[in-house]
Amino acid sequence: MPRSRATLPSPQFSAALEQGGTPTGPVRPGPGAHAALHPATTEVRDGFWHTRREVNARTSIPQGPGLLESAGNLHNLRLAAGAAQGEYQGAYPFVDTDVYKWLEAASWQLAQRGREEEGGAETGRLAADVERIVSLVADAQQPDGYLNTWFQIRRGGERYQDLRWGHELYCAGHLIQAAVAHHRATGRDELLDVARRFADHIDSVFGPSGSGRPIDGVDGHPEVETALVELYRETGERRYLDLAGYFLDRFGHGALGGEAYCQDRVPLRAATTVEGHAVRQLYLLAAATDLATETGDAELRSAAERLWHAMTATKTHLTGGLGAHHDEEDFGDPFELPNERAYCETCAAIASIQWSWRMALLTGEARYSDLIERTLYNGFLAGVSLDGERWLYVNPLQVRDGHTDTGGDQSARRTQWFRCACCPPNVMRLLAGLEHYLSSTDAQGKGLQIHQYVTGRYRGDLGGTPVTVAAETDYPWQGVVSLTVEETPGDRPWTLSARVPQWCHEYRVRCGDRTYDHTDAPVEDGWLRLERTWVTGDQVVLELGMAPRLTAADPRVDAVRGCVAIERGPLVYCLEQVDHPTGGLDDIVVDTTRPPAVRHRPDLLGGVTTVVAAGHRRQLPEGDWWPYRSAGAAPEAAPSTDEPIELTAIPYYAWANRQDGSMRVWLPTF
Amino acid sequence: MPRSRATLPSPQFSAALEQGGTPTGPVRPGPGAHAALHPATTEVRDGFWHTRREVNARTSIPQGPGLLESAGNLHNLRLAAGAAQGEYQGAYPFVDTDVYKWLEAASWQLAQRGREEEGGAETGRLAADVERIVSLVADAQQPDGYLNTWFQIRRGGERYQDLRWGHELYCAGHLIQAAVAHHRATGRDELLDVARRFADHIDSVFGPSGSGRPIDGVDGHPEVETALVELYRETGERRYLDLAGYFLDRFGHGALGGEAYCQDRVPLRAATTVEGHAVRQLYLLAAATDLATETGDAELRSAAERLWHAMTATKTHLTGGLGAHHDEEDFGDPFELPNERAYCETCAAIASIQWSWRMALLTGEARYSDLIERTLYNGFLAGVSLDGERWLYVNPLQVRDGHTDTGGDQSARRTQWFRCACCPPNVMRLLAGLEHYLSSTDAQGKGLQIHQYVTGRYRGDLGGTPVTVAAETDYPWQGVVSLTVEETPGDRPWTLSARVPQWCHEYRVRCGDRTYDHTDAPVEDGWLRLERTWVTGDQVVLELGMAPRLTAADPRVDAVRGCVAIERGPLVYCLEQVDHPTGGLDDIVVDTTRPPAVRHRPDLLGGVTTVVAAGHRRQLPEGDWWPYRSAGAAPEAAPSTDEPIELTAIPYYAWANRQDGSMRVWLPTF
Repeated sequence: MPRSRATLPSPQFSAALEQGGTPTGPVRPGPGAHAALHPATTEVRDGFWHTRREVNARTSIPQGPGLLESAGNLHNLRLAAGAAQGEYQGAYPFVDTDVYKWLEAASWQLAQRGREEEGGAETGRLAADVERIVSLVADAQQPDGYLNTWFQIRRGGERYQDLRWGHELYCAGHLIQAAVAHHRATGRDELLDVARRFADHIDSVFGPSGSGRPIDGVDGHPEVETALVELYRETGERRYLDLAGYFLDRFGHGALGGEAYCQDRVPLRAATTVEGHAVRQLYLLAAATDLATETGDAELRSAAERLWHAMTATKTHLTGGLGAHHDEEDFGDPFELPNERAYCETCAAIASIQWSWRMALLTGEARYSDLIERTLYNGFLAGVSLDGERWLYVNPLQVRDGHTDTGGDQSARRTQWFRCACCPPNVMRLLAGLEHYLSSTDAQGKGLQIHQYVTGRYRGDLGGTPVTVAAETDYPWQGVVSLTVEETPGDRPWTLSARVPQWCHEYRVRCGDRTYDHTDAPVEDGWLRLERTWVTGDQVVLELGMAPRLTAADPRVDAVRGCVAIERGPLVYCLEQVDHPTGGLDDIVVDTTRPPAVRHRPDLLGGVTTVVAAGHRRQLPEGDWWPYRSAGAAPEAAPSTDEPIELTAIPYYAWANRQDGSMRVWLPTF
Repeated sequence: MPRSRATLPSPQFSAALEQGGTPTGPVRPGPGAHAALHPATTEVRDGFWHTRREVNARTSIPQGPGLLESAGNLHNLRLAAGAAQGEYQGAYPFVDTDVYKWLEAASWQLAQRGREEEGGAETGRLAADVERIVSLVADAQQPDGYLNTWFQIRRGGERYQDLRWGHELYCAGHLIQAAVAHHRATGRDELLDVARRFADHIDSVFGPSGSGRPIDGVDGHPEVETALVELYRETGERRYLDLAGYFLDRFGHGALGGEAYCQDRVPLRAATTVEGHAVRQLYLLAAATDLATETGDAELRSAAERLWHAMTATKTHLTGGLGAHHDEEDFGDPFELPNERAYCETCAAIASIQWSWRMALLTGEARYSDLIERTLYNGFLAGVSLDGERWLYVNPLQVRDGHTDTGGDQSARRTQWFRCACCPPNVMRLLAGLEHYLSSTDAQGKGLQIHQYVTGRYRGDLGGTPVTVAAETDYPWQGVVSLTVEETPGDRPWTLSARVPQWCHEYRVRCGDRTYDHTDAPVEDGWLRLERTWVTGDQVVLELGMAPRLTAADPRVDAVRGCVAIERGPLVYCLEQVDHPTGGLDDIVVDTTRPPAVRHRPDLLGGVTTVVAAGHRRQLPEGDWWPYRSAGAAPEAAPSTDEPIELTAIPYYAWANRQDGSMRVWLPTF
């Protein structure tokens, strides 16, 4: 990995500074917004996320155009433009979004690497690919602004006749997000013009009855709403915000058949828990949070806070994964959190991060970044292979011994692409834009908040004055984070805030000649707040306790009764069969009376810290045809014939990178 | 319930005797078959199953024609016959099978009630409905024998172009089964002629390459195979048997894309476990057993035995329910047996009973009827409401507190009919033909075997001589079964065999002046064998121990670690929220140190024996947003603040007959 490249000054950050310090990320609350925090930009220069982003930049994103070509997505755009002959490719009305998400990813990547003239041949190729694909999109657009290749080609131009399943506005939403990214990242207007024409067209078609618009309805898959808010933020056109608000409140009143799947069973403002298709719910909640941020709508904010709590407290897997059901990709009931059949779609993890970041900006509360951290390191990152070439659509917490997997989108085997390829380009865009989710400044210009720890620089703007804090860390492998003030006004105090992760109960902080620990550090609601008149060179060293943890679930999570999971720092661990060559994982038992040990393994899976626990393998009776018996025999007592075994746990994100086999996060204690 | 009707001599049984004692059920091994047992017919006169069958006869079956009319199935037949105008109704290419399964149910019902001239107005109406619907089917058939309304109407007559999903042979299979039933039950040829024409057409189209038939392939949904064997049995036409064998061995070689879903991943002869779509697997296994029975194919028999063991030992829910996944209606992995998301389709329970009965006849082993009993009383019977008007498609083992159920086929609420209405008429045909699954005679004519206990008469034929054993029992509420020999040759010994259920470890047997218990009774492999020169009036009284049992699962069933289920006799019990008005069921804990008590409740759910256990309600902390915590605190220790509660368990089959609410079979012990 040629790390030296990343130590160059980031052209994107320079560009952002040229624009007056405004960062260029996917979420940018407007000037009058009711946001507690505004995103700052973080330069990720080395370490864990730098490595993941280099793979994204050098493998995943560059492979995109070829995959979009071979899957037919680009062909469909040419068909719609009248520039090609042949059959439509792809089985879904939303295949255009694969292109849009890739364009968004590539745009953030271009911003990071600098424009063509600055970034060398690789970046030049990427810029050329983007320009070429933006042209295909523009050419496919119809004169009145409509754009959806499925309906243009397969349905003879029929529009908006199947709002429940047609995904036309969903596609528009991803187009708009790509266009905003392209504009923010490159300063170019081509894609933004396409998006605005489509948005204007939608605004001329959809509206409440009495508005003069022909259709009073909404798309079955939320997404355009959050995109329209961002288009408002980028263009200043208030009617995009109003249209987003109209759509948001159109859900829950039966226009889509009243199904929870489409978020139509109950209005979001009245909902008491998250429900239905997880990604739909989460994109809708991102929009609700955006709207509350821009308009100050207290009812919407309250609903978003209530639903976030209901989700995390009762419907979130330990990995941050969301969606208990394969069937309808549904959230499931409270505490219904299966392991083998956990759906935990990679896109739901991404949507959860996107929503929680908006909540963090709206409220300023650390818990949202706690969930982002957990999801990033576990439920999200498991979605892409270490080499950046293969993907998981669903992210189960267990694969049983002898699992027969016939492949397909919902396989527990990594796949190069999917028939429904929503996840891979979604991962690409999040990784490419990750630096926008890591730090913030508060609305009053009083300080800089560090949400996630990386090696690099956090840069904020405090009322026109730049502040820069450099960071060095081997997080998540080690708990030490060294922060050094590099730029500061020097003549007035400001607050450096650093999030103390929710998983961390023991830590130390050294700031100048003061040292705190978890008993006396100035931490409120998860934020370590250090207010000083900082001078250049000031150092803060945070030491987070990284002892491995054995974690149990609320007893209402029936699926893991009598089990523990291994965690260390922000990482959830799992066992993989390949590390346990004497047998499978279905019959192992962990011994919780002996503390697990830590072994760093630079040779393994790109370098991981493993956790080693004591356990045994059950000797099970063979041969009877019925696996249920009298409860008399205490299952807790391990027969003396049981075979002792060393259990080697690896980070969950790294599973399924070696050979097929069983895996489990939750380990039986008897 | 006018029970007096049922004490009339059964016309069907009389008819069967007129045919030389051969019973008229759905499975009738041929004269040269390698069957250990041959089905005898049981007259069910009173008690548990009589009540269920009366509801089937008086409510479910009579409602069928109206439902098939309103759902459009009959309309589709008229469309195909050119006798109606309008749109095709129904979303699936297999809607014709709803009609066929109803015809089979009605045929068994007619056999039981006697023909029109014997059975009164109600039976006359049913006979007229059958005649009318048989005519609709006959009129819809094309001149060359082809019959499938979906392809005739919706696909412009296109045939066999989509074998993976088209269900054309699947539909033929259900037509053939209905026709065999109609012929056996009524002696009439109209429907059998239709079925033979279709079977002859199929035989002219499908065959191995080189056979001169144009298509070398097989339907993605097995069903025609077992039906063709029965058509061979009914007609003596060997080529139907050969065609069944050809189809069976066509699976597993990639003709259907190699998917486990379609039973195409591996040939059944080589398979090591059941996999893929549960109903498809089970219908295929029924055919394999039929073929092994007729041909003596030892490899097929061995495969069927191996797969039955793999299924029961590792993939069967306590209720006998099969299918762990909603996704693809799949069996799932070994020991992957979720509760909330158990699929356990009602049709899979039926298919399991059909297959196990064929295995019982082939092998003579009691274990197959053990599984039939468990499935009948639990996983199957839960599929129909007590009033016979509403149905469950899936049969979960848990519904959580606050479960949001938006209805639909896969709801945990009973529904009057389904968009995919495979289950209701399948229940009807099994209940209407149930008497054929209850007793047998052995191939050597040496005895009568009682597989399931009912009040009524078991009648067999021992080499031309009839034997009759009358039975009185309040099973499953009480364990006493009184058997009285009514007809016997008198001059030679024969063996009366009675199955000692697999769940039963304590029992007594009184036979004349001998008394046995479980330590000395002549029981081998589950069969109590009493060989005597019986004389009329001889009595055997069997007393099965009916103490409630607390049952645990193999520790590899992760979903129920630390839980027990309540069972009594053949019944699995569950808690329903309606019986626990002080709260829900998600926070209850059962106390296994205190033995549960039994309370018969004639007022409840048509009369059930409840089991009452001691337990408590957990006091759970409120408010935190993250439900995972350090495993340090022992979850086993119930806090002293926990509220004691009496847990009232009802038989699982009777759940969801009162109000919506939570339910659970497996009860946490901590």
